[in-house]
Amino acid sequence: MTTVVTPKGFRAAGLAAGIKANGNPDLALVVNDGPEYGAAGVFTRNKVKAAPVLWSQQVLTTGRLRAVVLNSGGANACTGPEGFQTAHATAEKAAQLLGCGAIEVAVCSTGLIGAQLPREIVLAGVEKAVAALDASPQAGLAAATAIMTTDTVAKQAAHTDAAGWCIGGLTKGAGMIAPSMATMLAVLTTDAVLDPVLLEPALRAAVRVSFDRLDIDGSMSTNDTVLLLSSGASGVTPQPEVFTAALREVCTDLAGQMQADAEGVTKRIVVRVSGAVSEDEAVTVARTVARDSLVKTAIFGADANWGRIAAAVGYSDATVEPDRLDIAINGVPLCRGGVAAGGRTDADLSGPDVLIAIGLGLSDGAAEIRTTDLSLAYVEENSAYPS
Amino acid sequence: MTTVVTPKGFRAAGLAAGIKANGNPDLALVVNDGPEYGAAGVFTRNKVKAAPVLWSQQVLTTGRLRAVVLNSGGANACTGPEGFQTAHATAEKAAQLLGCGAIEVAVCSTGLIGAQLPREIVLAGVEKAVAALDASPQAGLAAATAIMTTDTVAKQAAHTDAAGWCIGGLTKGAGMIAPSMATMLAVLTTDAVLDPVLLEPALRAAVRVSFDRLDIDGSMSTNDTVLLLSSGASGVTPQPEVFTAALREVCTDLAGQMQADAEGVTKRIVVRVSGAVSEDEAVTVARTVARDSLVKTAIFGADANWGRIAAAVGYSDATVEPDRLDIAINGVPLCRGGVAAGGRTDADLSGPDVLIAIGLGLSDGAAEIRTTDLSLAYVEENSAYPS
Repeated sequence: MTTVVTPKGFRAAGLAAGIKANGNPDLALVVNDGPEYGAAGVFTRNKVKAAPVLWSQQVLTTGRLRAVVLNSGGANACTGPEGFQTAHATAEKAAQLLGCGAIEVAVCSTGLIGAQLPREIVLAGVEKAVAALDASPQAGLAAATAIMTTDTVAKQAAHTDAAGWCIGGLTKGAGMIAPSMATMLAVLTTDAVLDPVLLEPALRAAVRVSFDRLDIDGSMSTNDTVLLLSSGASGVTPQPEVFTAALREVCTDLAGQMQADAEGVTKRIVVRVSGAVSEDEAVTVARTVARDSLVKTAIFGADANWGRIAAAVGYSDATVEPDRLDIAINGVPLCRGGVAAGGRTDADLSGPDVLIAIGLGLSDGAAEIRTTDLSLAYVEENSAYPS
Repeated sequence: MTTVVTPKGFRAAGLAAGIKANGNPDLALVVNDGPEYGAAGVFTRNKVKAAPVLWSQQVLTTGRLRAVVLNSGGANACTGPEGFQTAHATAEKAAQLLGCGAIEVAVCSTGLIGAQLPREIVLAGVEKAVAALDASPQAGLAAATAIMTTDTVAKQAAHTDAAGWCIGGLTKGAGMIAPSMATMLAVLTTDAVLDPVLLEPALRAAVRVSFDRLDIDGSMSTNDTVLLLSSGASGVTPQPEVFTAALREVCTDLAGQMQADAEGVTKRIVVRVSGAVSEDEAVTVARTVARDSLVKTAIFGADANWGRIAAAVGYSDATVEPDRLDIAINGVPLCRGGVAAGGRTDADLSGPDVLIAIGLGLSDGAAEIRTTDLSLAYVEENSAYPS
């Protein structure tokens, strides 16, 4: 099992601190033991940012991290100065126990917006987590498990390079997932020796085509955080582009796991757009289709209703020439040049994977967005959470 | 009963032409017998426009209409030159029977995208409709009934002015409703004597704050059309602002009926935003909240989950200062200054009407968007239509 502690120089822990009323695991800790402490972060673009996001953004300006404390069971968002003090106290507590400064400890939270976290319970949990720190795969799994909310499985990925360095990662997220990686937390670790100034561009490049291309329901969370920690413990220095490619692969793997475990999913949908004026416009078209409730309910019903796809393409904020529009579903052309090209019953949507291929016929801009169907279970789960 | 033929100078018909396989009414005709023939139209902004929209936009450049043919049972969208010829032939047929030019006949269609309409059946239907034309309320109701798709009730409204003129209207639409009045057709008639150049501005002003402020699922149709026909038959000339206000009232009434009958609705939601930097930004915030699947499922579950509302406000494309954000549901303050202001169980969401009031605390921009919850029935209906 490859985990967030597969790279040398990292330890982790995950446990039930008592934040969640049901007694499930709810607190995780990932520690970088060095020798290097490089770090970078990408955060939600939501203007309403949770206290831990405000704290961690501040911390990350140093480009350096010793540890990350993560909790589920509460987002610590819309909690005002008291909530910020809780995030600060959490970092302070970890720093004190690990022998570093609070400015070297990031904090991530996920759960219900608007409620204060039970500060003393969180701080006691940090103490237990520090005591439980370990470099075993079990410890990595425990950390990945402790940040789950409506996730049904822990999500981990890794890349082991033949040159002797590796990347590990964990993530959570199953709903409220949209541009800027909504309601997702991810921690990526590496023991490659990396110039600290390369970390943020590498992370941004990887996130842009992985987590940012996952759009479950168009909702962007207050808490999204992706962190990259680098220990340099392998002693091996990869080429920057080799590292970035590997990081992208790990992030794409994690994003795929999030898609597969999204709330109420019965179909995994890839919306692939080609022929757009630019990559940005391809993303715009793909995202508009991926968010359209009528497209998503049709796919749930295994109905190749390409007319709804054409309508969504048409109202997207991108250049579209209706008489150049091609649409195929699972390889079966259904619309060519803006007109029906076959029977809509020709495409088989009975399986769990659906590929919607849209050709705009304008230029060579291309992109993919991954999404899911809009199912009865999605509505059931989200109308009852938290009950 | 007040209908589209309540104003003097109009006749209507509605019948089952055989376009719908189930034999339900599917063809309507509204005729203006003058003495004036002023007309204006507002159409979908979708770049993929149905053939009848392309036809009617062209026709409306004259500012003059004698008749409108409307059909359900097929959108005639993504149907290429053949579909355009069908729209043209439909207008031609009505014109020939009514003794006017095709350029004086608008065409509106609604139904499945991507299938050709059965042209001969439509033309035969036009012939029957012309023979059935009548100025009775029953004829108005028959027209309103013939354009229903997933609507469960015919939708009509009217304004009768003490000065001796009136406005009548019919509409359809229950899903795919978004800015620019998606999947809705409406015909408004008036016997007021009006300067033709006033018609379009009056219609745009009325639509902007009625149909355009209804957003069921964020999907914008290929077929939206709102037409205003003026006969001048009352001989009474109202003040332009008096006419516009009455037209706005009729459109708002019709939009309310569409909201109440939206697909799978269990809650009628008004999102009211105040304190925005501008009216446009208030609309942006209200629309973002109205479209958020997590907000809509929470309301379906009668859960006053204001944190999801705060998150949606935060990712809207408008100026937001998190620590000035106030949120109340059904009059109960739940968030004040960006922080919890009460228990979320304080607000009673058990009834069918939910008012979400959002204060941004920045300036005096205000607006309302009407929407509905995201229910199990919405998913059921849209995953099975058409089966």
